[in-house]
Amino acid sequence: MTETLFNQILQAQVKCKDCEDRRANIRVSIELKSTSNPVHKKDLVVRITDDIDPYFLYNLVISEEDFQSLKVQQGLLVDFSAFPQKFIDLLHQCIQEQDKDNPRFLLQFLSSTPVLDHTPAHLNIVETNAFKHLTHLSLKLLHGTDVEIKKYLAICLTCVKAQTKYQQQSEQQRRELESLHQKNIEQ
Amino acid sequence: MTETLFNQILQAQVKCKDCEDRRANIRVSIELKSTSNPVHKKDLVVRITDDIDPYFLYNLVISEEDFQSLKVQQGLLVDFSAFPQKFIDLLHQCIQEQDKDNPRFLLQFLSSTPVLDHTPAHLNIVETNAFKHLTHLSLKLLHGTDVEIKKYLAICLTCVKAQTKYQQQSEQQRRELESLHQKNIEQ
Repeated sequence: MTETLFNQILQAQVKCKDCEDRRANIRVSIELKSTSNPVHKKDLVVRITDDIDPYFLYNLVISEEDFQSLKVQQGLLVDFSAFPQKFIDLLHQCIQEQDKDNPRFLLQFLSSTPVLDHTPAHLNIVETNAFKHLTHLSLKLLHGTDVEIKKYLAICLTCVKAQTKYQQQSEQQRRELESLHQKNIEQ
Repeated sequence: MTETLFNQILQAQVKCKDCEDRRANIRVSIELKSTSNPVHKKDLVVRITDDIDPYFLYNLVISEEDFQSLKVQQGLLVDFSAFPQKFIDLLHQCIQEQDKDNPRFLLQFLSSTPVLDHTPAHLNIVETNAFKHLTHLSLKLLHGTDVEIKKYLAICLTCVKAQTKYQQQSEQQRRELESLHQKNIEQ
């Protein structure tokens, strides 16, 4: 079972090695995947995509065990179940500030290479105060494999087709209602 | 020329490897050393000592060049001249909170070994919010060499001797004044 907890386009500061920083829109999606066969297991899936670039896909799957390492490494004080909401709260703080020239909370997407290629990247949530940049969260994401991108594009295609079909049906219904209304007037 | 910017006893959380955390009083001193011969040069000296343990001495000397690395490494947004005051402001935030059970700002003294021996240690200023521990500053200090401890103890000894002498002189003056007062009454 997959529960979508967050799925929004956010403005991020994109920083690549030896390149000038730029602002870009990225889609951040957070999903909770539960399986109970063979064992009860929960994974948090963080996915970064770009609605304009179909090949842009970065993934991070955090299991309950992985989370323990992340917790120690980043000095987190919440458990696995409370983490997604705290992460979403931080993303909302970024959204609130994203149109400001000097946002207090900023979403960063960092690559250690000159271009966003197949190397891992970091998604950081950074607070800027008068003294320093304070990193509230730093997640290491892997570039999607061909299989993952294929699967993601298939889902996107299905969604777009369903949306188109829905729009066509709505349009058809609207025309039928109009025609019925016209006949009633004429009678 | 040495200018003392800060010299106070603070309560710190001492964390050694495989040991239970404990609270201890440490003296933090921050000095600005200026030399103009052969070149104009400023060094910020951070010294951690323990008024009870004469051999406890950790040092960090930050030159203007060193500061550039520290600035990049820790995402600082202030320059060398503004840094000491910001550091002192953070220490004052720790002082304000040090008697609380759950201080928002905490001074930490960390060693990667089971005891505070001759290995480097970290002086951290950590903010704790509902989500995580946020490190505002982390300074790596080196244990004082025999020569440094010798010099430090010589200064301490000179200060204590001067203080004792001052107290003896004050006491002497007090007695003389008392005796004079007594004579005046008797006349």
